[in-house]
Amino acid sequence: MANFFDEALTALQQRLNYQFKDLTLLQQALHHRSVAGASNERLEFLGDAVMGLIVADQLYRRCPQAQEGELTRSRVSLVSGKHLAQLAQQFKLDECLQLDNDLKRANLATHHAAILSDAMEAVVGAIYLDSSWSEVLKVVTSWLKPQLALEANLDVKDPKTRLQEWTQQQNYPLPVYTLIAATGPEHDKRFKMSCELVRPSKLNTEAISHSKKEAQQQAAQLMLDTLAKNGILV
Amino acid sequence: MANFFDEALTALQQRLNYQFKDLTLLQQALHHRSVAGASNERLEFLGDAVMGLIVADQLYRRCPQAQEGELTRSRVSLVSGKHLAQLAQQFKLDECLQLDNDLKRANLATHHAAILSDAMEAVVGAIYLDSSWSEVLKVVTSWLKPQLALEANLDVKDPKTRLQEWTQQQNYPLPVYTLIAATGPEHDKRFKMSCELVRPSKLNTEAISHSKKEAQQQAAQLMLDTLAKNGILV
Repeated sequence: MANFFDEALTALQQRLNYQFKDLTLLQQALHHRSVAGASNERLEFLGDAVMGLIVADQLYRRCPQAQEGELTRSRVSLVSGKHLAQLAQQFKLDECLQLDNDLKRANLATHHAAILSDAMEAVVGAIYLDSSWSEVLKVVTSWLKPQLALEANLDVKDPKTRLQEWTQQQNYPLPVYTLIAATGPEHDKRFKMSCELVRPSKLNTEAISHSKKEAQQQAAQLMLDTLAKNGILV
Repeated sequence: MANFFDEALTALQQRLNYQFKDLTLLQQALHHRSVAGASNERLEFLGDAVMGLIVADQLYRRCPQAQEGELTRSRVSLVSGKHLAQLAQQFKLDECLQLDNDLKRANLATHHAAILSDAMEAVVGAIYLDSSWSEVLKVVTSWLKPQLALEANLDVKDPKTRLQEWTQQQNYPLPVYTLIAATGPEHDKRFKMSCELVRPSKLNTEAISHSKKEAQQQAAQLMLDTLAKNGILV
């Protein structure tokens, strides 16, 4: 039994692309509170913050065009429970989780995504404690490569540029941006901008932001979303 | 004018206990969006995550007894806008902030705490980019020393122990903990525990948690809070 578990941990470390110096850290990260002993909850607390900074660091460097609002949206998606649970499934964390027997019988992926995502965070916390900052940054970044590449790719062109290029390709009139309203005190102004298309059909989106430029970008993004949702733009 | 600003930046770096290699990073961190040019909003995004990890790291190491819930509560308080604005005032960040003139005339500390706390986060992000992880950890930890010492001190004794010792000092009967209810499915049970005192007056607190032990601790903490709020315990 011990041997079986040791082998499972060895295989897991290969999948994680990280070899623990102190294996008890990994074991604790995989120890759910439903089983007696020190649970992974403190490591999860730490790992959540480690994950947060690694994602913020990478988005900041890879998306030099992105404004704060876009960076925040991307970060929320990358550190979401859903995404972490997917990572955990990809690494087959469940094969090594120390769980109450009732829980083991259940289908973790479907019914207990939170257990998987919490354990994933705890593993990140364990690697942080076991290694150096540059090492944990490298390892976790390697896990997130596809998602980060996607974000960086989106960053290359801003929504306004993407929308303009699309209308030109289609030989449609260019989108028209109009200032609808400016509200709030001088030091905290909000601008509401609309984005209008006349072809392929009359479409209108609106967004509010602290700058007209950002409000235009957001309205353009909403227009791209609308076009995509209606299957007009792929 | 340029000289005056340079001198202000030199003094600020001394107060921050950090000397920038790339001074343009500090300048950007102090550049509010109300003034034309690259604002501090992207650095604020990064600094928020840096601050989050530094606080999580320090609480994790300094409070080995604390459970995840307590660590989270302490972290929320340390990274709160209120606390960051206090730090910013302590460092006199406002003396170097690049702000719209209308804003400058206002009393930043009272009316625009968010501008100060955002700039504080941006400065943390700037130090992170300008230095190494060990260096930013050391610098920011030095700023938080009094708060972290307080948290570590609280950690030495858990709420149940503190409440028990207090009742013994006062020659009062010991607190009584009772299980009120256990709800939820087997793998996700919640326990509601009450904590009761008969002296100095009849007092009752209740808390719910995944473990009876943690629910008792939380109920004890609520009792300590109640006693403190009523001026009974200092």
